[in-house]
Amino acid sequence: MNAAVRAVVRTALFNELDVYAIRQGYKGLISGNLKKVDSSDVSNTIQRGGTILKSARCEQFRTPEGREIAVQKLRDNGIDALVVIGGDGSFQGATLLGKEHGVNVIGVPATIDNDLVGTDETIGYDTALNTATEAIDKIRDTADAHDRLFLVEVMGRDAGFIALETGIAGGAELILLPESLTNLSEIKSSLTRVLEEHQRSSLVIIAEGDETGGALKLSEELKPDFGKYDMRVCILGHVQRGGNPTARDRVLASRLGSAAVTVLIEGHSEVMVGVVNNKIKLTPLKMTFGKKKDINYELVELAKTLR
Amino acid sequence: MNAAVRAVVRTALFNELDVYAIRQGYKGLISGNLKKVDSSDVSNTIQRGGTILKSARCEQFRTPEGREIAVQKLRDNGIDALVVIGGDGSFQGATLLGKEHGVNVIGVPATIDNDLVGTDETIGYDTALNTATEAIDKIRDTADAHDRLFLVEVMGRDAGFIALETGIAGGAELILLPESLTNLSEIKSSLTRVLEEHQRSSLVIIAEGDETGGALKLSEELKPDFGKYDMRVCILGHVQRGGNPTARDRVLASRLGSAAVTVLIEGHSEVMVGVVNNKIKLTPLKMTFGKKKDINYELVELAKTLR
Amino acid sequence: MNAAVRAVVRTALFNELDVYAIRQGYKGLISGNLKKVDSSDVSNTIQRGGTILKSARCEQFRTPEGREIAVQKLRDNGIDALVVIGGDGSFQGATLLGKEHGVNVIGVPATIDNDLVGTDETIGYDTALNTATEAIDKIRDTADAHDRLFLVEVMGRDAGFIALETGIAGGAELILLPESLTNLSEIKSSLTRVLEEHQRSSLVIIAEGDETGGALKLSEELKPDFGKYDMRVCILGHVQRGGNPTARDRVLASRLGSAAVTVLIEGHSEVMVGVVNNKIKLTPLKMTFGKKKDINYELVELAKTLR
Amino acid sequence: MNAAVRAVVRTALFNELDVYAIRQGYKGLISGNLKKVDSSDVSNTIQRGGTILKSARCEQFRTPEGREIAVQKLRDNGIDALVVIGGDGSFQGATLLGKEHGVNVIGVPATIDNDLVGTDETIGYDTALNTATEAIDKIRDTADAHDRLFLVEVMGRDAGFIALETGIAGGAELILLPESLTNLSEIKSSLTRVLEEHQRSSLVIIAEGDETGGALKLSEELKPDFGKYDMRVCILGHVQRGGNPTARDRVLASRLGSAAVTVLIEGHSEVMVGVVNNKIKLTPLKMTFGKKKDINYELVELAKTLR
Repeated sequence: MNAAVRAVVRTALFNELDVYAIRQGYKGLISGNLKKVDSSDVSNTIQRGGTILKSARCEQFRTPEGREIAVQKLRDNGIDALVVIGGDGSFQGATLLGKEHGVNVIGVPATIDNDLVGTDETIGYDTALNTATEAIDKIRDTADAHDRLFLVEVMGRDAGFIALETGIAGGAELILLPESLTNLSEIKSSLTRVLEEHQRSSLVIIAEGDETGGALKLSEELKPDFGKYDMRVCILGHVQRGGNPTARDRVLASRLGSAAVTVLIEGHSEVMVGVVNNKIKLTPLKMTFGKKKDINYELVELAKTLR
Repeated sequence: MNAAVRAVVRTALFNELDVYAIRQGYKGLISGNLKKVDSSDVSNTIQRGGTILKSARCEQFRTPEGREIAVQKLRDNGIDALVVIGGDGSFQGATLLGKEHGVNVIGVPATIDNDLVGTDETIGYDTALNTATEAIDKIRDTADAHDRLFLVEVMGRDAGFIALETGIAGGAELILLPESLTNLSEIKSSLTRVLEEHQRSSLVIIAEGDETGGALKLSEELKPDFGKYDMRVCILGHVQRGGNPTARDRVLASRLGSAAVTVLIEGHSEVMVGVVNNKIKLTPLKMTFGKKKDINYELVELAKTLR
Repeated sequence: MNAAVRAVVRTALFNELDVYAIRQGYKGLISGNLKKVDSSDVSNTIQRGGTILKSARCEQFRTPEGREIAVQKLRDNGIDALVVIGGDGSFQGATLLGKEHGVNVIGVPATIDNDLVGTDETIGYDTALNTATEAIDKIRDTADAHDRLFLVEVMGRDAGFIALETGIAGGAELILLPESLTNLSEIKSSLTRVLEEHQRSSLVIIAEGDETGGALKLSEELKPDFGKYDMRVCILGHVQRGGNPTARDRVLASRLGSAAVTVLIEGHSEVMVGVVNNKIKLTPLKMTFGKKKDINYELVELAKTLR
Repeated sequence: MNAAVRAVVRTALFNELDVYAIRQGYKGLISGNLKKVDSSDVSNTIQRGGTILKSARCEQFRTPEGREIAVQKLRDNGIDALVVIGGDGSFQGATLLGKEHGVNVIGVPATIDNDLVGTDETIGYDTALNTATEAIDKIRDTADAHDRLFLVEVMGRDAGFIALETGIAGGAELILLPESLTNLSEIKSSLTRVLEEHQRSSLVIIAEGDETGGALKLSEELKPDFGKYDMRVCILGHVQRGGNPTARDRVLASRLGSAAVTVLIEGHSEVMVGVVNNKIKLTPLKMTFGKKKDINYELVELAKTLR
């Protein structure tokens, strides 16, 4: 996300605009936690995980009164446009600022789950994918005995993008996604096939939002039948949210952050900038709410062919 | 590349075809270094750098007599189709096998430089990009004194893909590509701007094929004017060719390897499978020779805006 | 562990001895899964995680009859000495072979938990430490909001070495070890101090063998009082057992593997080779059973000073 | 190094002392670039590469007048002791402050080359070692053809610690150190043995300070005889100075930084804190000048046995 902030700042300065950085999101906006920045404030930040702007939840911004204060702070500082980096929750807030007060707002998609419509990929996704894949590689190194069964839970409350691509990249024997129903007897027969017929250890990837209820719950349900195997659970959790961003994530964030400023200058508002088929594409912010991008079902089939 | 081999093997077996692995490329084919493989031969290989099939140069295959022997080996083993993973050199050989002897051949694009036409990305490119970017991140950590000038040479004999995207991802002050001419006085004035006006250290990325002649040559030419700075050269070389592949590279390789078998079954030959706009696309092998994919000039401009 | 195998093989060959590799430990020995190896069999293995010899549990070896078969296999192949790489369980088996059948046996300490007496460090420990620390670094990147509470469970069933050093290296606010009793009210008051007085997020490292019962159990016990915080659990599990070994682990393994052969040649048996104060030291195998190396209590105090 | 700064700050605060951070070393001291710090100023820094205090060269401090100004700044701020983190150059400056003005000074050893006497290991060494080793691992992945010859230059102007341990950890066929003379004909015969008899690719590690003159110079001298091989040069350079520090480096830095404050409180001055045989040890600063710690010759022999 720092790469996106840097691109917004430097593209604005390149176009001789003043730029302010607001820390802690809408909460910081309401409390006036903002300052004018120049080029060197974003030097040496592109490689950092997390975000230099920090993040925070803000209940107050959900009320018209809260947003009134927010707009006043923008006006006090002579700010007439806002670039919001985040997911559909942040975009809903931005849309209200636009609708209620005429603030120009542009959304930049940054969610780990990659389920936003209007962009092929969101900022943070490729990094999370690689982090999860590296963890699975390390587990593979110990999968040399054929009586082991690994259950690895990755992020994805509503969407299986990380689980699906990590599962393919990690060569998982079974991938459990929120998007597809898998009943326990299917899971058991798949595992039996690998563990007994192929005499291999078995690695199952589970999205946290899968209907089985996650890795721990599944391990308990498998215990009666698979108790003779050495069953191990790994829950990666927030490890997937940090780490130095991948090259691809930084280039994507640089493109989107820069495009956000360019389209503002061109007069757009209440749109999200995305990359579709390697080109910048605009999508009205309101079209991003409540929708979910579909996973690639071709990859679901590929995973079954290759396992 | 192992992910592609694995995908070819498992997709063939899924379709109840026999598969053989040929080690050391055309050299191994001529010498009969091939064996029938099953699913477990490619277990636990997807995370490995390099290639389990090893590679080798082969002069003999460039002669009609060499190819005659190669085809005979295929026939002796009842093999009627060949999947070739590599660049345009390998594809030329494959085309000759097809033309001269009617062997069905499919190309899978795997070159680090990413300059093959017919696919948005080649296998190995994303991994090389991340390796180079990580190296630059480490250099950045020491760029805290403002009198330092780093010259980092990355791969790319004819194409600047790695240099360009690494330069953006690493926040380089200057990126020197084979595709664009930069004269020495422009380079000097860019560096002066960063080092003296901005009082920052400066990082220059140079593709090995840039017309300046590489990092060492450039450092010598800069010495007279920039001798007061602490100038350091880093040549990454083959470091960029190895390392565990990224998730994206493995998913791409899995898709392409699997598609190679599918299109063979469908009756295609003398084509390369690629991914364009996230969909599998076929390109006649002969159209990949001697051509070069263009770099994205939008990114060249972006780099200038953000530096 | 591959570095140790490589060192045993190459040191034996250097001394003109024949060497055999036994796969799957004692199970492989009983079933005759062994073969003569030469120098190139261990080429290109030093950087690999896991073990090329694979591992397996073996109940049969615990019986005198099982060990009788094992010794017969050694004699059939003209093998008169055995280097056993592992922990105190493996060393007990080795000792019985020595006592009952006069086989020369040398132990090489390789356990992730680092709790073997007779060596400052065991093979695999430094790698596990770095893997756990890298995971915590990634979590830190997201610890920018001050209302977050992370509970990270690391390996260590009986020993807190990994938890202690990871906790210091990761700057954890609280470290829970099997070696020290921490009651729930102390834990709560430590967390309150960080979260409320310092207004920081808080990261707790828990050894899996801590008396609190691990990260999940602790999270449930904290919920009543800390429900207003965003509490997250991460269980690293077997991720810590794999991955490319660190330089330090490889140098240690090379030294110990080579020393194992040297001391065999010198006539020793039923000893473990270790490194104490940077020098090779021998310890009778039987002294390693059932004992546990103490953690460094100076580091426990350091952690409290620095948090 | 950030871990050492953090440990100094927190240990001082733990002992109810005021602490100031001086940026840019002696240059910052002379220019008054210092500020009082509290515990949260060093939060979230332990995992970072480089140094938050930045570094700079300072000619002025080498003069009595410069040091006079420096001491005045210390007195103006009520500072009566100085912890200096660096190598023997920095320690010489510190000693002069002590001798000439009675300032209490403690040295903390942080040099990448690891050649300081008085400590088994210096801060930064383990990280550099792992960075170089990872680079070599990646090169190994491409070393599958037997006609390749890699020359990798690592840091070490006067000392071969990095080259020696990296060479063992990376399984190099030849290691060239400043400490040992190797003539060109020995180098050639070693390479011939590996490339021709063993039919393997060959990897040579060269310390930058080796008398051969580094990787590029050596490659030119080898060209006449080894021209038929595919010879590649890699110069890692400053890549080795950055990157997130290893767990071991952070624990070492935490121990040394904390000990520096403890020994100051105990009344020591003009000493360096080191770790010898896993215990804190004090060495008079003046004994660290101009001396060089010996490499471990046992490891030199080990490298020859294992290659």
